[in-house]
Amino acid sequence: MVEIRVGRTRDAKSYARLKVTAPDAATLDAILELVGPLGARVLDNQDIRTAPAPRDGALPDDFYSTTNLETQVRMRGQWVPVANTEMDLAIVVDGDAGAAAMKPMSEVKAGEAVVVGHSGIRVTPLARLSSRDVFSFMNSDVSSEKPKAQVIQGIAQEMRGLRERGGRVCVVAGPAIVHSGASPWLAALIRDGYVQALLGGNAVATHDVEHALYGTSLGVDIAKGSSVEGGHNHHMRALNTIRRVGSLRAAVEQGILTQGIMVEAIRAGITMVLAGSIRDDGPMPDVITDVIEAQRQMRAALRGVDMVLMICSMLHSIAVGNLLPANVRVVAVDINPSVVVKLADRGTFQAVGLVTDAELFLRELGEALGVRP
Amino acid sequence: MVEIRVGRTRDAKSYARLKVTAPDAATLDAILELVGPLGARVLDNQDIRTAPAPRDGALPDDFYSTTNLETQVRMRGQWVPVANTEMDLAIVVDGDAGAAAMKPMSEVKAGEAVVVGHSGIRVTPLARLSSRDVFSFMNSDVSSEKPKAQVIQGIAQEMRGLRERGGRVCVVAGPAIVHSGASPWLAALIRDGYVQALLGGNAVATHDVEHALYGTSLGVDIAKGSSVEGGHNHHMRALNTIRRVGSLRAAVEQGILTQGIMVEAIRAGITMVLAGSIRDDGPMPDVITDVIEAQRQMRAALRGVDMVLMICSMLHSIAVGNLLPANVRVVAVDINPSVVVKLADRGTFQAVGLVTDAELFLRELGEALGVRP
Amino acid sequence: MVEIRVGRTRDAKSYARLKVTAPDAATLDAILELVGPLGARVLDNQDIRTAPAPRDGALPDDFYSTTNLETQVRMRGQWVPVANTEMDLAIVVDGDAGAAAMKPMSEVKAGEAVVVGHSGIRVTPLARLSSRDVFSFMNSDVSSEKPKAQVIQGIAQEMRGLRERGGRVCVVAGPAIVHSGASPWLAALIRDGYVQALLGGNAVATHDVEHALYGTSLGVDIAKGSSVEGGHNHHMRALNTIRRVGSLRAAVEQGILTQGIMVEAIRAGITMVLAGSIRDDGPMPDVITDVIEAQRQMRAALRGVDMVLMICSMLHSIAVGNLLPANVRVVAVDINPSVVVKLADRGTFQAVGLVTDAELFLRELGEALGVRP
Amino acid sequence: MVEIRVGRTRDAKSYARLKVTAPDAATLDAILELVGPLGARVLDNQDIRTAPAPRDGALPDDFYSTTNLETQVRMRGQWVPVANTEMDLAIVVDGDAGAAAMKPMSEVKAGEAVVVGHSGIRVTPLARLSSRDVFSFMNSDVSSEKPKAQVIQGIAQEMRGLRERGGRVCVVAGPAIVHSGASPWLAALIRDGYVQALLGGNAVATHDVEHALYGTSLGVDIAKGSSVEGGHNHHMRALNTIRRVGSLRAAVEQGILTQGIMVEAIRAGITMVLAGSIRDDGPMPDVITDVIEAQRQMRAALRGVDMVLMICSMLHSIAVGNLLPANVRVVAVDINPSVVVKLADRGTFQAVGLVTDAELFLRELGEALGVRP
Repeated sequence: MVEIRVGRTRDAKSYARLKVTAPDAATLDAILELVGPLGARVLDNQDIRTAPAPRDGALPDDFYSTTNLETQVRMRGQWVPVANTEMDLAIVVDGDAGAAAMKPMSEVKAGEAVVVGHSGIRVTPLARLSSRDVFSFMNSDVSSEKPKAQVIQGIAQEMRGLRERGGRVCVVAGPAIVHSGASPWLAALIRDGYVQALLGGNAVATHDVEHALYGTSLGVDIAKGSSVEGGHNHHMRALNTIRRVGSLRAAVEQGILTQGIMVEAIRAGITMVLAGSIRDDGPMPDVITDVIEAQRQMRAALRGVDMVLMICSMLHSIAVGNLLPANVRVVAVDINPSVVVKLADRGTFQAVGLVTDAELFLRELGEALGVRP
Repeated sequence: MVEIRVGRTRDAKSYARLKVTAPDAATLDAILELVGPLGARVLDNQDIRTAPAPRDGALPDDFYSTTNLETQVRMRGQWVPVANTEMDLAIVVDGDAGAAAMKPMSEVKAGEAVVVGHSGIRVTPLARLSSRDVFSFMNSDVSSEKPKAQVIQGIAQEMRGLRERGGRVCVVAGPAIVHSGASPWLAALIRDGYVQALLGGNAVATHDVEHALYGTSLGVDIAKGSSVEGGHNHHMRALNTIRRVGSLRAAVEQGILTQGIMVEAIRAGITMVLAGSIRDDGPMPDVITDVIEAQRQMRAALRGVDMVLMICSMLHSIAVGNLLPANVRVVAVDINPSVVVKLADRGTFQAVGLVTDAELFLRELGEALGVRP
Repeated sequence: MVEIRVGRTRDAKSYARLKVTAPDAATLDAILELVGPLGARVLDNQDIRTAPAPRDGALPDDFYSTTNLETQVRMRGQWVPVANTEMDLAIVVDGDAGAAAMKPMSEVKAGEAVVVGHSGIRVTPLARLSSRDVFSFMNSDVSSEKPKAQVIQGIAQEMRGLRERGGRVCVVAGPAIVHSGASPWLAALIRDGYVQALLGGNAVATHDVEHALYGTSLGVDIAKGSSVEGGHNHHMRALNTIRRVGSLRAAVEQGILTQGIMVEAIRAGITMVLAGSIRDDGPMPDVITDVIEAQRQMRAALRGVDMVLMICSMLHSIAVGNLLPANVRVVAVDINPSVVVKLADRGTFQAVGLVTDAELFLRELGEALGVRP
Repeated sequence: MVEIRVGRTRDAKSYARLKVTAPDAATLDAILELVGPLGARVLDNQDIRTAPAPRDGALPDDFYSTTNLETQVRMRGQWVPVANTEMDLAIVVDGDAGAAAMKPMSEVKAGEAVVVGHSGIRVTPLARLSSRDVFSFMNSDVSSEKPKAQVIQGIAQEMRGLRERGGRVCVVAGPAIVHSGASPWLAALIRDGYVQALLGGNAVATHDVEHALYGTSLGVDIAKGSSVEGGHNHHMRALNTIRRVGSLRAAVEQGILTQGIMVEAIRAGITMVLAGSIRDDGPMPDVITDVIEAQRQMRAALRGVDMVLMICSMLHSIAVGNLLPANVRVVAVDINPSVVVKLADRGTFQAVGLVTDAELFLRELGEALGVRP
């Protein structure tokens, strides 16, 4: 510890200068990797070092693996922002253009210049939130027993502001939204312009269509809450109906599909990515069955997003969480506390976790925003 | 299988006569124990056999252990109903009076006549519910993903009917009702006559009082959803406030306590049993610290009850479930599916399990019944 | 109910003849769909009816959706077995060859003859298991609190028998096997011939390689149980190491990978299917990124399997469960009771659920089979 | 912030002097309450203030509510240690003797001098653990997926050291220990002197006796893992057997009870507290049915304890956690991650959480300590 100056107020900056020594280069690297995301920078900084990717989809051995924080690299003495913040990626630079971007391993081409080691990299840690921010007072703790009404009001206010400012809200949607009877609320939020991107899988699409065609979800009558005889085949018939016409859009255009989440998303023209999984029946023709292509489209859909609502979809929510920069606000809703903890506690990003029903959450949110289901 | 006649319609009775053999008496006893609750009766029936209790609180070795089904015993050739149906008890008979009642082991006195063996006992299995009954179509399955609105409507309808007919509804209440902000709804249900007995522990009482005095529950401001500085001591101060005046009733009468669940229960004059546990701080002076005495008072409060709502209180709900006859309708609400499965799946009684928030459940129920929080 | 004859012994067959009426054809269909899997057959049977598939990957509207039970169809008066038993598929027949097979919707070609309606179909319900079978006494109940040693002994005995008879055992493996330190036991089971197929995802492969190369799993030192500084990047470096050489097999052949589950599976030459998901980093070059192609290869790997061990891998286990005929024995192991219930309670197949660690399960199983980790 | 000096090494002390202002006394009190447990002391310190308890079992309004950290009070200018560290209690002082002790509200007598306000109180925060301590590297994280072998070795080493030094280990035991077949291991640990106090409830005692008398636990044969016909009554018969002779000790002395946890605890003469709950059947005559008396005896049993193992007993474990000073080492074992998180994350005390079976934990611990089941 060479020097320390602590800020006198909550907003004032603090400064510390430390001398770091290590028995060998690998340990020094490990220490730099740990302190970098806390905002530490090597004082006597140098330019980045790079090495060429040895083949398509593979990286040089000593590649720098990114965090989900805003990052800059020093090239020819200049600090350059790195595009496409996301964790566990490589940084590929274009020395001539003076540009740098994060890229997944699988998309790096042979010969591209990949950043190696730790020189010339700095990371901006997240600033502390104001204590009156809904994302500040909730993110400490996940509990099913806390009052949720006020938090949902805070989320609604945030969403109203984002709609006014032209912000982007993404919803990651699981099939429990349909099973629990909450889909009309999500459909209404989309219709009224509160959602700019919808991410999900085959299940939410299939059950939404089953609900639109038969009034059931996995054979359970949503209005009555009871099983329908013979209803366990409805989801296969729903899948077949859409496969016969070729796409969800065609089904909407031909008047086969007239209500539900899919209909509103298609009518509103928002971005929709349905990503496949090995559990899928069918699947819906709109489902992207290649997971790497699905990730690519999810990344594109998430570009510039301000807030993500993850509702009862563990697989898709964790996948989306991995793709997000740390400064995107995340609301994670699930009835399983372990899932909420996992989603809300992914390191640095700003998350609110709510242990509750899809139905309760979407209805309260919808009522707070004044939409009509 | 000596003879079988299957009823031709859903309501018709079926009849089967079986010959049961076993290598020894113990095995025969074990078989009779298994088939008794299914409604089987020994054809060539004899009177019961009894033996005297060897000391206070202990039973003869071969005592008959009860089920939670309606039971009759044959005394001097007459079938006599056994009072106080509850599982795992002994049957004590008064031969002179021709009366029989179930009693917990701990309340049997030395010398009382206790039924032993399996002769002279018959058990009435529960009749199948009509398929339109809310308790019929829900009790097969516990899932957080099912639509709940319709089920809660069904429960409300049942409660409205019970209030009209002078039936008895018991609520088993956990502290999450207060933490989640749902206590005004429960208070309103009590005020409007929908609840005849309230069972709970020290925690629900303490947090209800904390809420009434400070607006917090475990230091969290219920209206704002955020922690209050120094609020983690509020529950100790709430306990002390009531201990200083001697009882919850005294606090109501002196105007110290003016709102909340406890206030409405005391004003409405309903039966209230607060049972202690080793986790308790304080406790509230009204808490029964001896668990056997608490069981005794819970049994008395449950006598003649038509429906029990178990809301977010695992310990008390399991205890109450053990005390109930099989034909009492039970609604088990908890956000933890394992708890709901445990409560709703206790053998034969008629239970609906809902995996959801206290807040969602009580608000929807309150709205369906038109009460004002 | 026209006639009923109940078998007098546990093994004797019972017979009932019922007359079924319904207000309309759809209701009749729904009833036939419900009673078919119970073993009911239409007495006055006719041949199946078929309709041509309207386009590639889509079915005629009234297609028959299969169960996971052995099925026969009547063609030209003859009962023909339907190949490839699996639920929620279509039956495609080749009238000239007199052959029938189940096919997923997505693989049916335009014009193929697809069975529609319910005529000419019969389903064989599963026979009851002998009461001494390990799969009989366990499958009623899933609980973390039951003694497991005896059940694991029973599974070991079954596996020993299968190895002797040349049976097929498939393991569905999740990454917790590596995290919990159990991978040497699984590797040993594979090496000693107890496993014929290995199904998993990118995570189990990545962490197995990370463990082989660095001794860590997600940065945690498996031998010491503590985090390694800088270790959170090990999984990305493990992925990159294999991507650089092109495949797991190449890494084994070049001596880069010398121990672990992947090594033993490749050396033993067993079938291995690694199916992709949208959560995947990398992925390993051996991962099948198209989920429909992955399902195809999983189906092939499962053909003729006698027993499946599903160990701590919810997504893959549910996917495999969907692909299995009802008579395949399934052992579902997870520390989360809800997952075990979901896996073990999928209708008719014969399942044992164990709520426990990967480590405990695999070590006890390995010790019972005498393998060396 | 008036002054700050940061220690240059991990062991060096840091020092900060702050000026705290607040708009009113209540806010100042709230701030002092927050910073006290962090080790802050009022510089210009004064003696404590006290007020007499207004009645038996009640405190003056402004009573100081304790933390579970070592505390000192200033009386006549001298700092005096406060005995019986435990959170949420009052401090009662004897001015003449210059002594102070923490007391539960319910045990304070009218007129005793109770500390009020915040003057004259200082609290010693816990020192950081050495990074090589098993309690240091585990307590950050609770996960079912981490390797446990090494941690259990560390606990065994700690227990071996405690036995050598004459330390005190307390086990809080739930009935799952018996259900899962682990009771012989716990019995052996007691026999070999590794346990000095056993805390539990009626259930663990009842099922231990059931196991000793019938080989079953809740009717499940522990050796075979399958249900025994008629076995669901065994626990009632076990209870009755002990009630007939009057106590567990009498049953041991009369040779009725010859093996199991209870037998070893009685033979070894260790402290045993069985605390009642409203769920209890019977109960065993040794169970303390008054929960306040049970707390009193639990407090006495925990006096001077060095380490507590909480095994599969949520209610008793939480109760014990509330009674412990922060510096007692706690190992919390449960198969439910939420329970482990709740137990291991109770603020300041030093806890290791393990998500696993009672059986796995106790067997590995027993093997590591070389005991014979």
